[in-house]
Amino acid sequence: MKIKLSALAEKLGLDHVGEDMEISGVNTLDKAGSGEISFLVNPKYAHLLDTTRAGCVLTSGPYVEKVSRALVSTNVYMDLAKVVNLFAKPQGCLSGISDIAYVHPDAEIAPSATVYPFAFIGARAVLGSGTIVFAGSYVGEDCVIGADCLLYPNSVVMGGVTLGDNVILQPGAVLGGDGYGYAQTAAGHMKIPQIGTVIVEDNVEVGSNSAIDRAALDITRIGRGTKIDNLVQIGHNVQVGEHCLIIGQVGIGGSTKVGDHVVLAGQVGVADNADIGEGTIVAAQSGIAGKIASGSKLAGTPVMPVATYLKAAGVCMPKLPDLFKRVKALEKELNAVKAAVENGNDHE
Amino acid sequence: MKIKLSALAEKLGLDHVGEDMEISGVNTLDKAGSGEISFLVNPKYAHLLDTTRAGCVLTSGPYVEKVSRALVSTNVYMDLAKVVNLFAKPQGCLSGISDIAYVHPDAEIAPSATVYPFAFIGARAVLGSGTIVFAGSYVGEDCVIGADCLLYPNSVVMGGVTLGDNVILQPGAVLGGDGYGYAQTAAGHMKIPQIGTVIVEDNVEVGSNSAIDRAALDITRIGRGTKIDNLVQIGHNVQVGEHCLIIGQVGIGGSTKVGDHVVLAGQVGVADNADIGEGTIVAAQSGIAGKIASGSKLAGTPVMPVATYLKAAGVCMPKLPDLFKRVKALEKELNAVKAAVENGNDHE
Amino acid sequence: MKIKLSALAEKLGLDHVGEDMEISGVNTLDKAGSGEISFLVNPKYAHLLDTTRAGCVLTSGPYVEKVSRALVSTNVYMDLAKVVNLFAKPQGCLSGISDIAYVHPDAEIAPSATVYPFAFIGARAVLGSGTIVFAGSYVGEDCVIGADCLLYPNSVVMGGVTLGDNVILQPGAVLGGDGYGYAQTAAGHMKIPQIGTVIVEDNVEVGSNSAIDRAALDITRIGRGTKIDNLVQIGHNVQVGEHCLIIGQVGIGGSTKVGDHVVLAGQVGVADNADIGEGTIVAAQSGIAGKIASGSKLAGTPVMPVATYLKAAGVCMPKLPDLFKRVKALEKELNAVKAAVENGNDHE
Repeated sequence: MKIKLSALAEKLGLDHVGEDMEISGVNTLDKAGSGEISFLVNPKYAHLLDTTRAGCVLTSGPYVEKVSRALVSTNVYMDLAKVVNLFAKPQGCLSGISDIAYVHPDAEIAPSATVYPFAFIGARAVLGSGTIVFAGSYVGEDCVIGADCLLYPNSVVMGGVTLGDNVILQPGAVLGGDGYGYAQTAAGHMKIPQIGTVIVEDNVEVGSNSAIDRAALDITRIGRGTKIDNLVQIGHNVQVGEHCLIIGQVGIGGSTKVGDHVVLAGQVGVADNADIGEGTIVAAQSGIAGKIASGSKLAGTPVMPVATYLKAAGVCMPKLPDLFKRVKALEKELNAVKAAVENGNDHE
Repeated sequence: MKIKLSALAEKLGLDHVGEDMEISGVNTLDKAGSGEISFLVNPKYAHLLDTTRAGCVLTSGPYVEKVSRALVSTNVYMDLAKVVNLFAKPQGCLSGISDIAYVHPDAEIAPSATVYPFAFIGARAVLGSGTIVFAGSYVGEDCVIGADCLLYPNSVVMGGVTLGDNVILQPGAVLGGDGYGYAQTAAGHMKIPQIGTVIVEDNVEVGSNSAIDRAALDITRIGRGTKIDNLVQIGHNVQVGEHCLIIGQVGIGGSTKVGDHVVLAGQVGVADNADIGEGTIVAAQSGIAGKIASGSKLAGTPVMPVATYLKAAGVCMPKLPDLFKRVKALEKELNAVKAAVENGNDHE
Repeated sequence: MKIKLSALAEKLGLDHVGEDMEISGVNTLDKAGSGEISFLVNPKYAHLLDTTRAGCVLTSGPYVEKVSRALVSTNVYMDLAKVVNLFAKPQGCLSGISDIAYVHPDAEIAPSATVYPFAFIGARAVLGSGTIVFAGSYVGEDCVIGADCLLYPNSVVMGGVTLGDNVILQPGAVLGGDGYGYAQTAAGHMKIPQIGTVIVEDNVEVGSNSAIDRAALDITRIGRGTKIDNLVQIGHNVQVGEHCLIIGQVGIGGSTKVGDHVVLAGQVGVADNADIGEGTIVAAQSGIAGKIASGSKLAGTPVMPVATYLKAAGVCMPKLPDLFKRVKALEKELNAVKAAVENGNDHE
């Protein structure tokens, strides 16, 4: 794939600066060659403009004049996504329904769908047009998988789960495993069968080896446009809103509600039955519970405002041993002063 | 599946209140229709009794008179488990040994077992009666899998591992991967082959994408009735007792002992060689090490009693920056007082 | 497999003490029988020498005289690794290329490689000599897998990823899933296609269900000899050095650099774009960001020196509620003293 800079600019509706050239790929400022386009967003890397061999740079206002050829953008990441898309080669090397896949006779597969060897499609499952089920993936009975979905190798969609369109499951992702529900009895923990399901709306991505449990009854739901990173755990009956970012190794306990546009950074833990208002941002490794007002910016376990946490944990904590010494010294000195005052008063 | 309320009551050995009806399903108070049974345990949701359309409610004493039809229980969750069981449809759509599974000629499969397409059963492996191995699962050589086990899709049981009866492996669970053991040498980390195994006792459940490592030598053991949630890591040679609850994303380091009835909440980390007494409860995200007395209730990293942690981290931490200011003010004021006292004394 | 103690000593270049014997296995001091060899490293377990039935013990200087037969080592773990290796039986029960594997006609498989049933080898993929791909594993198009690698069941290597020699992927490990990269747009998070790849150097091990993302552009790299435990997440474009130990459930954010010989203990989180100097050791559950000097020993979130953390979090935190009371008492008393002083001064 090759494209002229001028043609690329036109395709993206952007201006370009400098002599036209033929672009054969996209790469980092460090690694790009003279036939490639690179990009700059973070001012921290602006010095690389001096040394890059990139033929052309996708960037914004202030940096445009520092390079000989530029593609001028007001949303560099968005335009980068479009540029990369042009050069991206999709994963995989087969198409059509493999003879060595298992497709239940009652399944409905769109003619344009692809089913790899060793994929399993259960009874009455429906696969939409353009959807690709890679090797070793499992689509259980009565699943409805929308159009243009990618179920990468060894992903699992248990029976009855519904996926919208353009859903991506990275390898090993599991949707619709049983929720963690037991009744306490004298004989031990008795399993409460998990007979609800999972609905994943359009444009959701689920990372490698993440797990989204089916509801006990009712539905676990992931709202459209939400992006879930690797090794994330989402408990039964959780309701995740739209356009959330749920980053690696986050765990969300059962029946919790997560509003739209929430960002949970890596390794955050959310308790059962929490209710996180929309637009909330939670810092990495924090632990969160209860009702959280919309637009909060929180950190710590239990959480507090980020600014407070940075002072308390970042500045104060390392000085805490010293603070204990200072308080002890104060107590000693105060006693001395008290004695002196009493002495002084006794003198009178 | 439909059942009369009166028949259901008889089946469960419970009383029922109100006119008889035919029950066709079970659902939440929010979602249940007039032909369905719902349930109430948590007083927080008692107000839903006013608006539910459920035909009948499984509940306990005080709530019985608030509904027109009730199934009266003293352990609502336990009876709910039984009710849901009646209506639950098991996962899967096949039975018998698939022609496109791989079953080693030296494996022993009970006639009533099910092996799905693309499941792999190694040499000398034994599958008990009623056990179901779903698509893409791997049962290594010399494994012994008991009766009525469920090995959901893409679960892995490495060679030589033993499972009791009624064990459930959720999708992607891995039993018997190598423990993390290396000798430090001048040439780097030298792998110590992990030649022990894993024994999982009866009625254990292991969540999606959890990993239980085989012992270096000897045995990693999970006691009967213990329930392990998703994405949990259990190191080599760990001994987990009976009826424990090990919740999502917990990690347990090598050779640690976990007593019976221990509860480890989400994302708890347990160090190598720890020894946790029975009945201990550890709050989410805590970090635990060393010897822990039975019946402890702990939180924090390092752990302290839960009540102390709630005060220290929940109440005091956010006020820590302010405390530093107060101590600084005290020091200043005390110096002023000391000066005044000395001054006063000088006057004499 | 049986070997004389004298022959074993010769093979390992070690001295032995006591009468010769035939050794048929290796086990813990607790479990070893009279025909087996055991080992002792940790002084904590020295008392077991009194009761062990082991025929012979691999150990170092001070313990040699406490047993009747010893194999004398100066690096017991290293020699244990060698002894165990002699007795270890490798996983698996098949060899050769299975008829019911999928091997793309354009793949290149070394004659001595093994491909299990239901393994998938994509177009132009290369498998080195002695490499074993277990059931349900996926090797995407254009992958290059070195010699003597073990791809345990259901591991996934996405297209274009390169593995050196002697690389071990435990079950369910995923290499080359998409990195987590999105452009923020008015219409939501737009996926930036991840067109980079992953290079894993020689002698690396990746634990069960761990995930290493492919780079956005460029390369995610794991240096030779690095050992990665279970359920670890490594983001796109991360550069991990050589001989690192990355323990269970660690998460490393995108573009971070980890120097050689770094140890990240369990559940550590590393932010995006961090830069961790070589030889750094980070305690379990810590959260780390920014630039870290080589040889640091750190703990906490945010991190501080381990010694400071142990005092601040381990000693001071539980006493924090009490400290608040002490400061309040000081304030009250100081006010009383001030009043007394002013009173005293008024008297003059």
